[in-house]
Amino acid sequence: MPRGNETERTLHIYREKVESALHRYFPSSAPGTSKVRRAMAYSLFAGGKRIRPVLCLLACKAVGGRIQAALPAACALEFIHTYSLIHDDLPALDDDDYRRGRLTCHRKFGEATAILAGDGLLTEAFALLSHPEVMKTVPVPVRLRVISVIAEAAGIRGMIAGQEADLTAEHRKVSLAFVRLIHRLKTGALIRASLISGGLIGGGGEAEIRALSAFGEKIGLAFQIKDDLLNVEGESRKMGKGTGTDQKRAKATYPAFQGLEASRAQARRLVEEAARDLHPLGDRARDLIRLGDYIIARDR
Amino acid sequence: MPRGNETERTLHIYREKVESALHRYFPSSAPGTSKVRRAMAYSLFAGGKRIRPVLCLLACKAVGGRIQAALPAACALEFIHTYSLIHDDLPALDDDDYRRGRLTCHRKFGEATAILAGDGLLTEAFALLSHPEVMKTVPVPVRLRVISVIAEAAGIRGMIAGQEADLTAEHRKVSLAFVRLIHRLKTGALIRASLISGGLIGGGGEAEIRALSAFGEKIGLAFQIKDDLLNVEGESRKMGKGTGTDQKRAKATYPAFQGLEASRAQARRLVEEAARDLHPLGDRARDLIRLGDYIIARDR
Repeated sequence: MPRGNETERTLHIYREKVESALHRYFPSSAPGTSKVRRAMAYSLFAGGKRIRPVLCLLACKAVGGRIQAALPAACALEFIHTYSLIHDDLPALDDDDYRRGRLTCHRKFGEATAILAGDGLLTEAFALLSHPEVMKTVPVPVRLRVISVIAEAAGIRGMIAGQEADLTAEHRKVSLAFVRLIHRLKTGALIRASLISGGLIGGGGEAEIRALSAFGEKIGLAFQIKDDLLNVEGESRKMGKGTGTDQKRAKATYPAFQGLEASRAQARRLVEEAARDLHPLGDRARDLIRLGDYIIARDR
Repeated sequence: MPRGNETERTLHIYREKVESALHRYFPSSAPGTSKVRRAMAYSLFAGGKRIRPVLCLLACKAVGGRIQAALPAACALEFIHTYSLIHDDLPALDDDDYRRGRLTCHRKFGEATAILAGDGLLTEAFALLSHPEVMKTVPVPVRLRVISVIAEAAGIRGMIAGQEADLTAEHRKVSLAFVRLIHRLKTGALIRASLISGGLIGGGGEAEIRALSAFGEKIGLAFQIKDDLLNVEGESRKMGKGTGTDQKRAKATYPAFQGLEASRAQARRLVEEAARDLHPLGDRARDLIRLGDYIIARDR
């Protein structure tokens, strides 16, 4: 267990739960698929921060639910996040060689396998969410709604739209409003879906779901601003990938628009506002609010 | 309406239903996503045979259901089939320039857009299957099961495993059993899922679902053998893509193993056996059985 403050200890505990669930729900053998499966596992177990699954579990807890029930959805969210990284890293897209300190999936396994591994993780997310042997305590209409929330967030009205907007914005003059749109779609949509799905599985009422959604909207943007900041000022060693790459590609980022100091202040303000969104949930939301603080304090 | 026999007329009627549903369920606008969306539409409306959605509708009808209820699932199956073609055609995989007589998605829109368009169609399938405003007459547990059946068939225990096995088999000596495995996974799994999901939505009992599944298993294999045969002997003009390409790539196919005549005989035998699997469904399965005949009689 790492030393550090209480937030880090909480995060560590939840991450451990996520890790063990990922190992449980990621299928380890089937005929004829060994390389794609190895590529999926390689990227899935590459030391990700597990922010989305942890947010899902904490949202479940924040509405009084049992986090056990949310573990499959938490894993499905991480499958989808990992698939998006694998495909984003491909030569035709961001063409990245390193991710989390290791070769990217296509550099390690080849492009064909990386494409299929991404496809596999995306599909596996929905196979898990709909699997007859999981989430048996969750009412079936809630499960269907969770699938809808996650598919909408991952798809062409969410993450994929954000990825496209991001490609469009490279080497082009765009407005700060457009950068905000990119962030909201590319990162924000799935983070918000993590909170909503956790809240739904935990049995949250509509007002609680709305509070989680508002929190997710702001936390998602703060998370991406922090990512942009780390790309400028982070240590390459800790990040496990190149830094300064956004500037090189003339990526549309907050620091590029308004400088480091204003970006830091904005991320801080967003996290504070997000915390206020959770007031209706009372003390049960304490860990979620702490995770918000961590999101802007982290160094990787 | 095309002239021709009754089967073709039936097929034509169901295809029209599928076309109009595809236009209804494929979302046509959203902020910042125009190119990916255009690429999705380009491939989705490229004149596909719509075999999977038609099988889904006919399976629904064969168990006494209303085909209206199965239209969203039918469209979702076609989304997934189209995504698989877009990704399979990519330079890193089959590297095909033409499909259905037109440039492949990546040749028309670029690789990045084609990857995202495939991702988008796959995700959109699950967004549609779980959408709160569709399939309202279908019991929610049935909807969840349909999602599970389709995700399993499309994923790493189905279609993706088949795609990987297919790549593995290129330029390598494999057994006929391995070729059969490829076909069963790559094409058969989603065809079988089309029949099962239609049957489930139509309210079929477990025995009926088993009959449809057995039918789908055989029809799926017959369909792929016929595809292999068309690759050898079909007219490039009618196929809308290169013929003879399997041989050039030393792809593992039935004709390569056992010759044209034995392959034709086997496809015919499979379709006859498949028809017998549907005896328990009686006269309602008539159109399904006819479609089996069409599958091996078709010239594209």
